[in-house]
Amino acid sequence: MDDGEFLACDWGTTHLRAWGIGAGGNILRRELFPWGVAKLTAGEAERKFHTEVRPRMQAQALPAFLCGMIGSDLGWIQVSYEQCPAGLGKLAASLRRLEAKPGVWIVPGLLSDGVFGAPDVMRGEETQLLGWVAQDASRKTGRIMICHPGTHTKWTLVVDGQVIRFVTYMTGELFDVLRTQSILRTSATADDHAAFDEGVAAASDGNALAARLFTIRARTVTGIDAPEASASYLSGLLIGAEVASIPRLLPTAQDMAINLLGDDSLCRRYARALSNRGVSSTIHSGENAVIAGLRELKAIAKI
Amino acid sequence: MDDGEFLACDWGTTHLRAWGIGAGGNILRRELFPWGVAKLTAGEAERKFHTEVRPRMQAQALPAFLCGMIGSDLGWIQVSYEQCPAGLGKLAASLRRLEAKPGVWIVPGLLSDGVFGAPDVMRGEETQLLGWVAQDASRKTGRIMICHPGTHTKWTLVVDGQVIRFVTYMTGELFDVLRTQSILRTSATADDHAAFDEGVAAASDGNALAARLFTIRARTVTGIDAPEASASYLSGLLIGAEVASIPRLLPTAQDMAINLLGDDSLCRRYARALSNRGVSSTIHSGENAVIAGLRELKAIAKI
Repeated sequence: MDDGEFLACDWGTTHLRAWGIGAGGNILRRELFPWGVAKLTAGEAERKFHTEVRPRMQAQALPAFLCGMIGSDLGWIQVSYEQCPAGLGKLAASLRRLEAKPGVWIVPGLLSDGVFGAPDVMRGEETQLLGWVAQDASRKTGRIMICHPGTHTKWTLVVDGQVIRFVTYMTGELFDVLRTQSILRTSATADDHAAFDEGVAAASDGNALAARLFTIRARTVTGIDAPEASASYLSGLLIGAEVASIPRLLPTAQDMAINLLGDDSLCRRYARALSNRGVSSTIHSGENAVIAGLRELKAIAKI
Repeated sequence: MDDGEFLACDWGTTHLRAWGIGAGGNILRRELFPWGVAKLTAGEAERKFHTEVRPRMQAQALPAFLCGMIGSDLGWIQVSYEQCPAGLGKLAASLRRLEAKPGVWIVPGLLSDGVFGAPDVMRGEETQLLGWVAQDASRKTGRIMICHPGTHTKWTLVVDGQVIRFVTYMTGELFDVLRTQSILRTSATADDHAAFDEGVAAASDGNALAARLFTIRARTVTGIDAPEASASYLSGLLIGAEVASIPRLLPTAQDMAINLLGDDSLCRRYARALSNRGVSSTIHSGENAVIAGLRELKAIAKI
């Protein structure tokens, strides 16, 4: 692996995470910037990258590797979606170079055959999950199921280091808009495990979600639940409905342990919902994985 | 029936509809006020009723009958939920009187055994649907299935003039928050029948709704759909998932024609989704029904 210093960025919808990576792969510095692509106007990504990110990261002279929604129509420039099956080799061959020395490279997204007559897309998770696979020799062969909980949760089947297929659930975004914008809105944030578990159980067949959601209002109005429990019950219903339908969409998931990758507290909710259904799972750091992925891509592309 | 003049109000979450009703049941005047209970502060409903509604409706000396969310914790005063089975008699016996002459009466809501271990509740639709039943002798006996499309769509089974059971879907509210607040937001408003029908078909088993929702983003990103089609596809997915799960929740709906009551353009979408699944339906005016319901209650209570 070419071990030159570089700037690694995971630039998503809500935030930009940047790391200065040393010659041996160590993290020299890290910053979280509040400019997700959803908040940027046209041309702003490029400007902020040069006037703020490079200086703050002491990375003016370093090659930069960016993954995530920065490569979408909402970001800096629209980069391709590569068709599955795809591994690190295909991604590295399609890196989009934007500038001369020191250079900016944006990682393409992935396109999967959909399960509903429509294709599915991802940007950012591919780097993280293939980086996670590359971190351990035992993951490089065989079938692996990875779940990225988040605004748009992704469930991905990887076989011998290649992404075969994935499916996206809007679960996190549904939770956010319902909790803040609907009749179910609540200021409660504390985890209520009992209410969460009840929600998971109530959604156990994945069906009639819009009707189950209204029961939250009915449960509060009739005094079955305290209003403070409603956010946890809502989370349980949404994650429970998702987990319940996975075996139908990605049938191989049925008999496999699930690898959860990403935000720890959200991963723990998914682990709990899976466990309630008798499915085992393990939680892994998303930060280390995305850095590993960008470093692998840089090495394969010999940059 | 006692045919004195009165003031009829359907005071819901988003609007107040008021009618001056003449001695023979004719509509003397009608007004739409933009003060749904969601927009009112504590005490404001009573104040607006006296300073604006009564004068504008020329109804200072008339008894007033109010149904809808005005009887909830968000409205004027919290009125009971009456347990199903319930008909006009039970509602009339539990009218809540608020003031001395000329008097204000608020109709109670209904409470149904739920289908998910939680009860279900309604306020406003009970007056409309029982009023509709009372409008025609042929509806007063036998089994009838009524659907009120709306922010919180209600499906109600009526047997021999009694509400037996109902179930609520948050379909309309999901449509609104997703169309305005999520990654699926769009300014498109025109009906695209082909996109709607595709959405209904895609949701045909009612399952994995959060995953199907994300396909709207994927369909637009990959050029399958024009962005203008996405609102109609979203509407089709949500109404399709609802219609698909109804026979499981209210099994008797399977073999019955559906009576759609309420907003005409929304009723027409439901009729289309039902027709796509081979279920026949008819559309009826909600306005006439709610007036008939309030007039029946006034008569039964001998006010």
